Amino acid sequence: MYPKIILDLILDLKKLPGIGEKSAERLALYLTQLEQDELELFGSHLKDLKTSIKYCKTCGLLTDDETCDICKNHNRSDETIMVLSDSKDVFAIEKTQTFFGKYHVLNGLIDFSRGIEPKDLNIDALAIRIKDTKEIIIATNSTVEGELTAQYIKTLLSREGLTISRLGYGLPVGADLKYADQLTLIKAVENRQKY
Amino acid sequence: MYPKIILDLILDLKKLPGIGEKSAERLALYLTQLEQDELELFGSHLKDLKTSIKYCKTCGLLTDDETCDICKNHNRSDETIMVLSDSKDVFAIEKTQTFFGKYHVLNGLIDFSRGIEPKDLNIDALAIRIKDTKEIIIATNSTVEGELTAQYIKTLLSREGLTISRLGYGLPVGADLKYADQLTLIKAVENRQKY
Repeated sequence: MYPKIILDLILDLKKLPGIGEKSAERLALYLTQLEQDELELFGSHLKDLKTSIKYCKTCGLLTDDETCDICKNHNRSDETIMVLSDSKDVFAIEKTQTFFGKYHVLNGLIDFSRGIEPKDLNIDALAIRIKDTKEIIIATNSTVEGELTAQYIKTLLSREGLTISRLGYGLPVGADLKYADQLTLIKAVENRQKY
Repeated sequence: MYPKIILDLILDLKKLPGIGEKSAERLALYLTQLEQDELELFGSHLKDLKTSIKYCKTCGLLTDDETCDICKNHNRSDETIMVLSDSKDVFAIEKTQTFFGKYHVLNGLIDFSRGIEPKDLNIDALAIRIKDTKEIIIATNSTVEGELTAQYIKTLLSREGLTISRLGYGLPVGADLKYADQLTLIKAVENRQKY
């Protein structure tokens, strides 16, 4: 019924989270009304997405360069490193403007049921960079995989003089960090608990 | 904070209806997780969208060919033509599987405040093709522009032997046709009123 290219676009759009059949149809038809140069730009952004983004070689964060702006920033302390599963979560914490340490992004969580083991995550690089670190804040989500990964990292990195804490107070159990409101995130950072 | 290409994608996504800042961020970050070939396909669909779709030279519907499948279908009667503002509305009516006449898509509505006059719409072609038509169902939305356009078409096309009706019963006033549920649309077709 729809022209083929619109059916194709509906399938593309349905892959996105929160976009069902009806929304995809509506968006695909709306796209036909955009200007050609807008569509070309949008299309080239999609094509270039994966080649344009890099992962910071120090911390694993999504970035434009070899090293991200946060790792480059000498005003930020190396003494505290917050460990997160995902770049999205770093962006959420950064928006609160209350954390001035460094980050380490695991780019995933341990999940044996899906075959994701510690070696598949950005964990080795963490073990290397924490020689002078005084505190590690583990900020993985409070899911089974998040807890398992937190436990693994705690066991792996424990040594005298290093405090390992876990984001705690304020973050509702089972909630996804990146959707939490800023106040909840601020509380969770302030009231982190020794792990 | 975000890599530039992600900021670009957020701007692209925010142009779409119903997608705000937060949703655009979420979708842009999600896109980084898709495979390169999926992103390339999506991108090329966007680039090729406007060149791949055509408007049927008979009825004005979005289509793959010079003439749409509905106009080509000899099992559908030419005696009744439903006039709609938009291809989206045709697709909504088609899904009800209760109308077996032909369509005529105006591709817009008269709107003097935005400088859209009858000559900017697909109206001349309608006047030419209705020689043997017995009924015209005007199915423009019940907005100011929809009513004005309906009135204009009624005045232009009125002749002996031609019934001009208007989609009526069942369609809530002020509602947008393409979002109506199927039952309401079926009622509106069944209970169309002489105009």
